[in-house]
Order: sequence, then C-alpha cells, then structure tokens
Amino acid sequence: MNYQIVRNIIGKIMILLAMLMFLPLIVCIIYQEEFINYVAFLVPILLLLVIGVLFNLKKAENKKMMVREGFIIVGVSWLIMSLFGCIPFIISGVLTNPFDAFFEITSGFTTTGATVMGGLQTITPEEALEMSHSIMFWRSFAHWIGGMGVLVFILMIIPESDEGSAVHILRAESPGPQVGRLVTKMKASSRILYLIYIVLTLVLILLLWISPDMNLYESIIYALGTAGTGGFGIDNTCLEFYSAYSQYVISVFMIIFGINFTVYYFILVGNIKDVFKNDELKWFLCIVVTSVILVFISIYPRIENFEETFRVSLFQVVSFISTTGYTTTSYVQWPALALLVLFILMFIGSCAGSTAGGIKCSRIVILAKSTLKKIKAMINPRKVETIKMDGNTITEDTISSVNSFLSVYLIVFVLGAIIIAADPLEGITVIDCLTGSLSCISNVGPGLGKITSSTMGNFSNFTKFYLSLQMIAGRLELFPLLMLFSPKTWARKRM
Amino acid sequence: MNYQIVRNIIGKIMILLAMLMFLPLIVCIIYQEEFINYVAFLVPILLLLVIGVLFNLKKAENKKMMVREGFIIVGVSWLIMSLFGCIPFIISGVLTNPFDAFFEITSGFTTTGATVMGGLQTITPEEALEMSHSIMFWRSFAHWIGGMGVLVFILMIIPESDEGSAVHILRAESPGPQVGRLVTKMKASSRILYLIYIVLTLVLILLLWISPDMNLYESIIYALGTAGTGGFGIDNTCLEFYSAYSQYVISVFMIIFGINFTVYYFILVGNIKDVFKNDELKWFLCIVVTSVILVFISIYPRIENFEETFRVSLFQVVSFISTTGYTTTSYVQWPALALLVLFILMFIGSCAGSTAGGIKCSRIVILAKSTLKKIKAMINPRKVETIKMDGNTITEDTISSVNSFLSVYLIVFVLGAIIIAADPLEGITVIDCLTGSLSCISNVGPGLGKITSSTMGNFSNFTKFYLSLQMIAGRLELFPLLMLFSPKTWARKRM
Repeated sequence: MNYQIVRNIIGKIMILLAMLMFLPLIVCIIYQEEFINYVAFLVPILLLLVIGVLFNLKKAENKKMMVREGFIIVGVSWLIMSLFGCIPFIISGVLTNPFDAFFEITSGFTTTGATVMGGLQTITPEEALEMSHSIMFWRSFAHWIGGMGVLVFILMIIPESDEGSAVHILRAESPGPQVGRLVTKMKASSRILYLIYIVLTLVLILLLWISPDMNLYESIIYALGTAGTGGFGIDNTCLEFYSAYSQYVISVFMIIFGINFTVYYFILVGNIKDVFKNDELKWFLCIVVTSVILVFISIYPRIENFEETFRVSLFQVVSFISTTGYTTTSYVQWPALALLVLFILMFIGSCAGSTAGGIKCSRIVILAKSTLKKIKAMINPRKVETIKMDGNTITEDTISSVNSFLSVYLIVFVLGAIIIAADPLEGITVIDCLTGSLSCISNVGPGLGKITSSTMGNFSNFTKFYLSLQMIAGRLELFPLLMLFSPKTWARKRM
Repeated sequence: MNYQIVRNIIGKIMILLAMLMFLPLIVCIIYQEEFINYVAFLVPILLLLVIGVLFNLKKAENKKMMVREGFIIVGVSWLIMSLFGCIPFIISGVLTNPFDAFFEITSGFTTTGATVMGGLQTITPEEALEMSHSIMFWRSFAHWIGGMGVLVFILMIIPESDEGSAVHILRAESPGPQVGRLVTKMKASSRILYLIYIVLTLVLILLLWISPDMNLYESIIYALGTAGTGGFGIDNTCLEFYSAYSQYVISVFMIIFGINFTVYYFILVGNIKDVFKNDELKWFLCIVVTSVILVFISIYPRIENFEETFRVSLFQVVSFISTTGYTTTSYVQWPALALLVLFILMFIGSCAGSTAGGIKCSRIVILAKSTLKKIKAMINPRKVETIKMDGNTITEDTISSVNSFLSVYLIVFVLGAIIIAADPLEGITVIDCLTGSLSCISNVGPGLGKITSSTMGNFSNFTKFYLSLQMIAGRLELFPLLMLFSPKTWARKRM
C-alpha cells in the first residue's frame, strides 16, 4: 500500500472540506446568528486545515495508485468527512448526542435524508425554521457535496500527469458499474460534470424562487436537497404545503438529477444520437412511467381527482426512484400496491453517474439481460449470444461484478434489517426493519412503516452508528467501506 | 423437439398417477365413505389410464433427449398432475370452484401447504376431520408424491439403455444446482433415493403413532406432510394441541427431510468421511442453530419458560427453513426479530436433493463464496482463487447459473407480490404481498401477516391461478415452467 499518496490525498480532502464549511459561516453572518454558531464552524475548519496541511507536508515520491489505494482513500475520506462534519451540530447544541450528530451529517453527505430531529415536525411552513439557518444550510449543503462526491472535486485540481492512477479514485466514488469518461482527459471530465451540476442547481433555485410560496432561503434548501437527491427540507412536513407548481418543478428535477450526467454532456455538445442510444436512460424512464401508472391506479379511488392523483403519484415515484425521499402526502396510508411499487423502486434507484443511490438501473439492465441470455442458452445451447449496453458488448467480468454487487447489497440489506429488528425500540414490525435498512443502504431516507425519515432518532446509539456506516456503504457502493473493515487490506504493508 | 418421446414419458406419468390414486380409494373403502367419493377418484383414474395408454401406443424410435425435452416433460407433467389431481376435490363437492381445487392440489404436489379451505379452522383436534378421510389423505399424499418427484419415480422403470438421455429429466425435476449421482447407474440412484424416502417416512409414522395423542390416521397425515416438507395437517390449528413429544419428533424429521438424501446414502454404506465433507450440510445446520438462537432471544421475554421457548423456536425455525410450514403457535404475533429470521429462512430453504423448497443452501453457499472471491480479487488482483464445494472446484458456468437463478427467483417473487397487491381483496399490507408471494415460490405455505396458509382462498380466481403456477415454478426451480411459456421453445419444431 502506498500510504504516502493516501495521506496526501486525504489531506487535500480535509482542506477542501474546510473551504466548503466557510459557506455556512457566510450564512451565519447573513442571518447575524449567535456567537456559538460561528465557533461551531470555525473549530472544525481549523482542525481540518491543520491536519490537512500536516498530511501534505511530505509529498509522495511514488504517485502510483492501484484499486486498493483508490478504495481506501474514498472510504477513509468519507468517514473523516462525517466525523468532522458533525462537529457544528454538537458545538451549536442542536444535537448533544455525538451519535445523533454523526448520523445526521452522514445522512446528509450520503444524500439519504433520514434525520434524528423528530422535533422538526411542524404543522405549517411558517412555524418551521426552528434550527438556525447556518446549521440547516450545512446539513442540506452536505447533500449537495455528497451527491456528486468530494473526490470528483479533488480530481479537478490534481496534476494531469497523475491521471492514470487517479482513475481508481473516480471508480471507487462514482455510482454505477463503470465510469464512462466524457472526454479523454479525466480532469476535464470532472470539470464538465461539476459545471453541469452547478448550472442545474442554480436553474432549480431560480425556478423555485419565482414561485410565490418559497423565499430564496427555502429555494436554496430544497434545491440542494433535490440536486443531491438527498431529501432534507426545512421541516418534516416536507413539501406537503407548497404549491403544485413547486411540487411539479421538484418532481421534474428529481428525474433530471437521477439521470446519468453524461446525457447532459451529450446534449450540450449536440450529440443527440448518443442520448437515444443510452439503454439505461430508456429503462429508467420506462420504470418511472410504469410505476406512476401503477401507483395512479392504486390510489385514484381514494383521491378521486385526476390532477392531484397524478401529481402525488408522480412526485412519490420519482422521489423514491431518485432516492431523494421528499414527500407531499402521507403515502404510508396508501394501498399495498402503491407501497409495494415504492418498495421496489427503493431497490432499483436511478442511473449510474447521477447523484442518486440504489442498485442503479444499469445494473438492473445487465442483470436482466444476462439472465435472459442464460435462459435462451438453456433452450438453445448451440447459439451463443453477447449482451450489449449502449451498443457495447458487456464482458463476463462485468456481469460477474454486477452479480457480486447484488449479493453484497442483499447481504448488507438483510444485516441492517436484523440490526434494526434487534434494537430495543418497542413496536417495530418486519416492514419497518426491511424498509428502514433499505432506506439507509439505498440512501432514500423514509421507510414504508412506522420508521419514517424523522424517527430514526429513537434507535439506540449502536443501531444509529451501524446505520450511519450502512448509509456510507450504500453511497460508496459497498466495496470501499467493506475493504476498510477487511484485515487483508491492511495486512500486506509492503505491497 | 422430439415430440414422440415427450408424449411417451408424459403418458407413463399419467399411468403412474392413476396407480397412485388407488391409495386414497383404499382409504375410501377402509372408512366406508359415501359413494360419491369412490366416483371422485375413479373418474380421474380412468381418464389418466386411457390417455396414458393412448400416449404410449406409438413408441418413439429416436429416444434421444436434450435439456429442452427434459424441461418440457417435467413442466407439462406437473401441470397435468395438478389438472387431474384436483378432480376428486370437485366431484366429491369439497371444493366447487375449479380454481380452488387446482390451487389446493398444486399446493399439495409442490409441498407448499397453503390451503383455500379456511373452514378447516377448528379449535381442538377432536372437532377437526370435517373433510372425508380419503380426500384429506389424497391432498397429504400429494405432498409425499411431489416431495421426491414423480419423474424420479419414472426413472426407476425406464430401460437402462436410455439413461444417458434421461439425466436431463432428473436434472429438471430435482431441487438444487447439480445432481450428484449416488452410484454410476441413475436407475439404481433413483431406487436408493425412493427407498430411503419410504423407510424414513415409515419410521416417522411409527414414532408419531406410539405417542398417546395421535391415532394411525393422524400419524400418517402428519408424516406425509413432514416427509414431503409440505405442511397440510388435519386442521388449520396444526400441531398446537399435540404433545411436546410429537412436536419434537416432527421438528427432528423436518430437519432430516431438509437434508440432501445422498447424506443418508453415505451413512448407509458407511462412508462417514463424505458426510463430514458436505459443505451444504454444515451451512444448513449452522443456519438452523443461529436462527434458533436468534428466535429464542427474541421471544424468550414473552414466554419466560426455557423448554417451551426452545421448543417453539426450534419448531418454527425448522418448519420455515425446511419450507414445511407447520405451526405450533401463533408466531405472527412474535417480535420483529423472530419474524425477520423466519422471513429470511423462507428465502434460503434447505439442502439440494431434499424434498424442501427455497433457493437452497448450496446456492447460498456458492453465492457467498463467489462474492467473497470477487472481493478478495479486488484487494489483491494478482491472486486468482477457485471456489470449492465438498472439495470439488465450482466452475464459472455453475456460478453464473446460480446467479441467473437468483435473479429469476427475485423477479418471479416480486411479480407474485405485485399480483397479490393488485388483488381486489381489502386490507392487504405490503408484508402480506411479500410473504404471500415468497411462501408460494419457496413452497412454504404460511406468510407472516394476515395472509396465512389458510386464507389464500379469499383471493380472486386469477390470483389463485397465478399463485398455483408460481408454486409449480418454485418447486421445479423456475426454468421448466418458464420454458413452457417461452415462444422460442415451441418455435423450432424441426430441431
């Protein structure tokens, strides 16, 4: 293991995180908040800067990185981000239990959106905003940071000569089975991705701001939560009391942020042909349309209003498939068919290369196609077919990786469900365990039973800590975090 | 497709089924039942004999069979068995709705044990036995027939010269990823398997009969249900009111019938070394022990009696992992942890080569080992490991087959859950949909919510018919039935 380069890059991440924490500090100044809130951000900023600089005093001579280094850097970085990112909650006094604070910021960075702040439950938006603006901004900003990933950001500033090795970092942090580089230079790719991300977020802020029911601050909070497919809002009633316009805008942008960002790049450069060749996009949109229809059919008899039924169906479906987790209605009361569709969507998630969580449509497509191939081969063993995605042949190695991913996903999911079931909290049902665990690994936020996104705080510290790790495992697509806990990773120091 | 040989063998199956239906006819005579019950069995017997003989008038000249023929024979045979096997229910008047009758006998043959006869719910065993003895015997006997499989039986009587081709039939009907032949001759293998099956069943009947609370008839019914890992009893209260002795005996035998029968062959021939080398057996027993401990911990605070807690934990765990589905207590009231364990066990099922359903432990082992191998390869790409089971190397082809199996299993499971959710029945919850569908595909019987093994009758005819097919798909491990519905199978007649 090349410890020196690992230390260097982690140091850079820490400096970057310190920089990002100046933004909530600016919010502090704008809203002239209490003195303690300034301290809450300045302490972690200073800590991060000092350690970050120390980690970079001695530069690595050998800049070679392998898959293992990439995974370690990403895994450790995300743990450090959560450890330092939760300090403002503790110092400001918003969350006194460190496990709560760790859970909350992890939920932010991983774009899950589950919260331990059950007290945020208010009746109308006017009564909300109990948390100070800076702290609330920080947890929503965490969604935005975590959505695209901090390491993609770092890749923008590394020297071009190191690109060959840095691809392992990108692979470890980016959601999806493979990373299609937009342009030959990875550095340029990262910049284009972040540019698209920033522009789309700004457009969303603007579209929400022009609606009569949101001020600039609310627009920013909901835009950050939507862009990162996170789900934190200004209160736990979420978007129920906002206008249909705002709800539609957010629905559309949840779809947009669930789509592979390369699609927007292709649109930007006028390469529409490649957009239509994107198999994952087609499947994603098909799943969305089918799900909206099923949910619509299921809940129409209860609402009996075409527009409203369509709006809540669309909103909840895209909220779950994009793993955002915003709600506009108490969907847990819906009939089984609608809930079952949402449950399935929590597994699937959106496209690779988006800010969303879940297994990802591309993996589902690969699984479906390879299974179909296997069945065909049984009927007619003489004919050997190859599987294609976007016109390219999928190798057996990719298929076996996707299968392993599915197995590990299911194992971690089941383990999380058992941990929740073993929690001393009274009155938990099987569906709470299943959807609670799924919600964390797929970075959705809410569940489908009594465990909603705002009741996770009732769990024991152990359960909360475990679920925090499960959220990170889900966001990093399992392997980087699993590797941190494998003795084999650390055993051979001389490699 | 070699239609002639397909017709021949299906004809033989029909004649065999006619022979087997003479047994309930004997029960009719013993209990001197009403005239209509004799008719109920004689009509299908005559029909089966006539068609069976007609199908065998012209012998196939070319006896060559491929995988496809094996799958078709098995798929069609099971549909025919269910179609003719349900006639006694209809003629005797026990079930007037043909969909109910089809569901009931399919549940029997597939060793599921879910019933449409909600009316069998009685308070004490004394009040039970509302159904005539012959009809009740027939549905329990169906468990026993379906447990080992009818085609394995047929293989005992085919000429030895055809063995090479007939292996495809055995593969298609036998549970598990691969069939280890006991001895070089398949015919001898089949005989040994059936002999072990018969002896174990007789021992169980004897052990139950010597208990003071079961007469011979009850002993036979419960022994048939246990041996086939089915779950039909004499009433829906099941084993709640029987002695602890009977409950322990059935617990032990549910484990015995969940283990690969080759293990007993090895014991018979004194080859104990091969028993200890059996990886699947070790995993199966480990899962049982772990599950019993978890369930025990979960429910002990409610019962507060060591022996009783142990007994119900053991019973319910082995009942679910062996996919039998017998119950001794209203476990649906148990805490989430215990229910979650049962839910997971419904997926896993028991060993390949047993009479049980589910994904099978051997597949779980292969999935776990191949996933672990993939993770190790990520940490250290230079070292290539192979996966072993029972000391033999598992090929990549087997791994990919197991992965495809898992995918199809999950797809069929989800589809079944959606069908149940779309059923017009009021008050269905998500957990009902999930466990109801799982119960059918894994051939367990009961669910974990309001859908118990005795309320499936409330579904619409469409749902019942679909679930009947899902039970067969589960019993035949998906592919034979999937193939019947694939246009490709029937397209190339000249192959």
